[in-house]
Amino acid sequence: MISKLSTLFVRTLRDDPADAEVPSHRWLVRAGYIRRAAPGIYSWLPLGLKVLQKVERIVREEMDAIGAQEVSFPALLPREPYEETGRWNEYGDLLFRLKDRRQADLLLGPTHEEMFTLLVKDLYSSYKDLPISLYQIQTKYRDEARPRAGLLRGREFIMKDSYSFDIDEAGLEQSYQLHRQAYQRIFERLGLDYVIVSAMAGAMGGSRSEEFLAVADNGEDTFVRSAGGYAANVEAVRFAAPEALPIADAPAMAEVATPNAGTIAGVVEILNRDVPLADRAWTGADTLKNVLFKVTEPDGRVRALAVGLPGDREVDVKRLTAALEPAEAEPFTADDFAAYSDLVGGYISPVSLDGTRVLGKESTTRIEYLTDPRVAEGTYWATGANRPDTHLTGVTVGRDFTPDGVIDVAEVREGDPAPDGSGPLTLARGIEMGHIFQLGRKYAEALGLKVLDRNGKLVTVTMGSYGVGVSRAVAAVAEATCDDKGLSWPLALAPYQVQLLATGKDASVFEEAERIAGELSQQGLDVLYDDRKASPGVKFADSEIMGMPLIVVVGRGLADGKVELRIRSTGEKREIAVADAVAEVLAAAGR
Amino acid sequence: MISKLSTLFVRTLRDDPADAEVPSHRWLVRAGYIRRAAPGIYSWLPLGLKVLQKVERIVREEMDAIGAQEVSFPALLPREPYEETGRWNEYGDLLFRLKDRRQADLLLGPTHEEMFTLLVKDLYSSYKDLPISLYQIQTKYRDEARPRAGLLRGREFIMKDSYSFDIDEAGLEQSYQLHRQAYQRIFERLGLDYVIVSAMAGAMGGSRSEEFLAVADNGEDTFVRSAGGYAANVEAVRFAAPEALPIADAPAMAEVATPNAGTIAGVVEILNRDVPLADRAWTGADTLKNVLFKVTEPDGRVRALAVGLPGDREVDVKRLTAALEPAEAEPFTADDFAAYSDLVGGYISPVSLDGTRVLGKESTTRIEYLTDPRVAEGTYWATGANRPDTHLTGVTVGRDFTPDGVIDVAEVREGDPAPDGSGPLTLARGIEMGHIFQLGRKYAEALGLKVLDRNGKLVTVTMGSYGVGVSRAVAAVAEATCDDKGLSWPLALAPYQVQLLATGKDASVFEEAERIAGELSQQGLDVLYDDRKASPGVKFADSEIMGMPLIVVVGRGLADGKVELRIRSTGEKREIAVADAVAEVLAAAGR
Repeated sequence: MISKLSTLFVRTLRDDPADAEVPSHRWLVRAGYIRRAAPGIYSWLPLGLKVLQKVERIVREEMDAIGAQEVSFPALLPREPYEETGRWNEYGDLLFRLKDRRQADLLLGPTHEEMFTLLVKDLYSSYKDLPISLYQIQTKYRDEARPRAGLLRGREFIMKDSYSFDIDEAGLEQSYQLHRQAYQRIFERLGLDYVIVSAMAGAMGGSRSEEFLAVADNGEDTFVRSAGGYAANVEAVRFAAPEALPIADAPAMAEVATPNAGTIAGVVEILNRDVPLADRAWTGADTLKNVLFKVTEPDGRVRALAVGLPGDREVDVKRLTAALEPAEAEPFTADDFAAYSDLVGGYISPVSLDGTRVLGKESTTRIEYLTDPRVAEGTYWATGANRPDTHLTGVTVGRDFTPDGVIDVAEVREGDPAPDGSGPLTLARGIEMGHIFQLGRKYAEALGLKVLDRNGKLVTVTMGSYGVGVSRAVAAVAEATCDDKGLSWPLALAPYQVQLLATGKDASVFEEAERIAGELSQQGLDVLYDDRKASPGVKFADSEIMGMPLIVVVGRGLADGKVELRIRSTGEKREIAVADAVAEVLAAAGR
Repeated sequence: MISKLSTLFVRTLRDDPADAEVPSHRWLVRAGYIRRAAPGIYSWLPLGLKVLQKVERIVREEMDAIGAQEVSFPALLPREPYEETGRWNEYGDLLFRLKDRRQADLLLGPTHEEMFTLLVKDLYSSYKDLPISLYQIQTKYRDEARPRAGLLRGREFIMKDSYSFDIDEAGLEQSYQLHRQAYQRIFERLGLDYVIVSAMAGAMGGSRSEEFLAVADNGEDTFVRSAGGYAANVEAVRFAAPEALPIADAPAMAEVATPNAGTIAGVVEILNRDVPLADRAWTGADTLKNVLFKVTEPDGRVRALAVGLPGDREVDVKRLTAALEPAEAEPFTADDFAAYSDLVGGYISPVSLDGTRVLGKESTTRIEYLTDPRVAEGTYWATGANRPDTHLTGVTVGRDFTPDGVIDVAEVREGDPAPDGSGPLTLARGIEMGHIFQLGRKYAEALGLKVLDRNGKLVTVTMGSYGVGVSRAVAAVAEATCDDKGLSWPLALAPYQVQLLATGKDASVFEEAERIAGELSQQGLDVLYDDRKASPGVKFADSEIMGMPLIVVVGRGLADGKVELRIRSTGEKREIAVADAVAEVLAAAGR
């Protein structure tokens, strides 16, 4: 196929779009692949759509290859099924809700677990019908608070979502593994450098989930990995609690005056000065910091939560958000502290937060107290005394206080030991490209999807759900391959494998270019032929921005029987004889 | 490609869905092609999706063939552009509107004139850039008051919409003709019996439009045609006014007492009894009936409208709706009459409605009075006297009253003369499959799409807009081809060209069936292989419901070296030798 640039609906832009935060966004807009229609909502121009369709084809082929069957659901959905699973509320502001002319509640589907569950319930009734995996490539909607980075986090986007239905856990595991393998092939074919990491199930629910992250400095997700093979999204890292220490070995609790200590560093300084340890110096890691949050449930209920963690670490907001989802947490304000008159800000004590102690009259709501896994039984800490200018030492877990439970939301640091003992962790960033979930029976139970088993007994089906960000993949590949001159597509995804430039004024240049374009097209390559009456400089610059993998220049060299072949990704240029041009380009295109 | 029915995600239903009004809807649901998700909103199951994708491919190929370029716009759109063209309001309840988390107004696109206009404005600036035609195959939303007939009138549906941009009228005419020809090829390839009729532009605006209607008894649209080639949607039929008669020839106005006349037939009876004509009998066509409507504009303003038309005809509600769009009309209620105390219901007189006369005190709003084209100057009528039990004869247009204008909304009847004199009209029904519009400059003006012309002067671009109902086409073809046993697809659209039934218990039957399926698939046919452990009766019935064009039965005859080939559309059956089976099926499939 040949397209002429003189008539192709595309214009490159000289300037970056004002809202461009990452290179892929900048170049996809500047090269004329996409245009913003509204915040987080994009139109696909011809070049962009061609890439998108190639991604779709790869995804479709790999889903078909594992026997998943393609269907297509509406985006506009009724409220009721989402009400039954609780997600109508749990999604909060992320869900686009609307009413039709009869005032019936509708939503724009953010993901389709409910609808697929109901469809399988509608059609199937026996274990003999299972397993089944269904997928769709479809437009999804999420009202992101901060749509960003072009296609990387949009409010309308294209996903491949699939759902597996099995009679038992072994079946689910198999369906899950099939999807996992299909996703590996998809991301390999897309040419992405990716990692598979343990992940949080989040609003989706379910027992096990993994994410496929494209490694990218501009990615929104942080993940950790160890040389020994551990890999997890930072939200999903779960440190094992150290073994309990004998409480009898713990020192007695003692008060230390800490006037004007200010920060934890200040407290540590006073401790080292006034109550030095025999064998080592006090550090922030010996202190227990207690941070208060106001937690809002999807139904609007508000509660207080105190998080206790070693004083040398902060609460990681993303880890906290993920741990509490779908509830949302905000740090305590002065007003919140005022509602708990017993609490002395800056000197919060776990002893005062212990569930056995009821707080002051104004605070009828008990504060839940959760601690970092390191705050294990028998460990002892320097911490606040809930009195101004006073701390306590030797405050021992299981003796002086007992937390309500564990919450693993402290920041993860480069060098922290991997939870599985496989060595120190390194941190990196990535773009979430795929997410696979073992949902289990949450949706099937809520919506009554049962089938008869081998013994004629009704059993609830177990499900998996699996997503690939299809439009996001276009941006992720652009992000991974672009350089400071523009886009640079791999052969498998480029809108055209070849951009053919006629740079010259002689008719012979255009005739020869047209001939080469025709032959390449006959050989099955897609050619973008720059036939414009524009300067060579404009044509070179546009070809670099647009990013076709192979660039053929028919110009001045033609008089000597030469054309130039450029490889966009490496910048390599070489002169080739006109007679060999087609063969050389085909070879470079892997044909 | 081979799919096995034992694992294909499909179930045929024994019973009609409760809401099925037309055969295509009934069979598409019963055969497991689609399922309702909400009123007017459908999910596509594997079989249905395959048909849809084949329709999409045909549409895409024909649009590419006329040089239109594919793009893809979002469905979720900002309010502002639709505000600027007035359609945010004009669409009324038909538009799905919603707010995002920042309370910004959004809509689900019913059609995309505004967005395409803005995109071309964004990219193009010169006459040299034109002409351009852009298209998308995309999901559209309209909140229909009465979604019906499955895919035929849905609230979420798939359309191919395209838009042409030209510098002048000649260019627009050419772009329009190119689309017209592409649509002819599309509907021919879909195998539809269709007509091209003159149509109303409706909410779209613009000067000229034509519809492509699939002829179908269950179609929502009524169209007329003459043997001489006239064809129009009934809403678009425009009768020419007869030539004016000399007013001097009109008889004098006279009163006739018409006590208890009741209906127009009653009035006619009294006229024939009391004031008989010399040369012929009075008929309803000699009377002038005046019907009152309350008209609500999109902005909420309400006004009154009287329609005068020959007494033997009714106002055609669809023609009236189309004529007034985007305003909406309702017949006057008793309360409405009460607001105009001068009006005597049942005896409304054009003389009292004449704009020169102001009605009673309570009615400060003047009533607009529009008449049928037949109510031409110099014609005279028997009509109400605006007094109980009294009519007038000889009421003459231009002498006794002057209407405010013409409105052509009387019912069109079989046998009425075609407006262009090409013979009597016949009426038929159809399904609107395509609609092409010469929009002109309405959208370009509203949104400021101008380019520099050859002389360096800014000129407003002229546009066309063109739509094909892609999901509707699936239903229209089903409607045209199904019979009382089920669906019956043409080869070009069938999910599989062949349904291969193994009917028997011998392993040899299944082995032979599998071998034939394999060979047909290798030859490029798509085969649905019924490998289920089910009775021949079930398999035959399912194959008839599902509607693949060729059915091959491997069963009892195999012992004699025979299989059976059935042609679904004709019911033809013939035995063929096993050895010839593949060749015969290929021939029947046109390979």
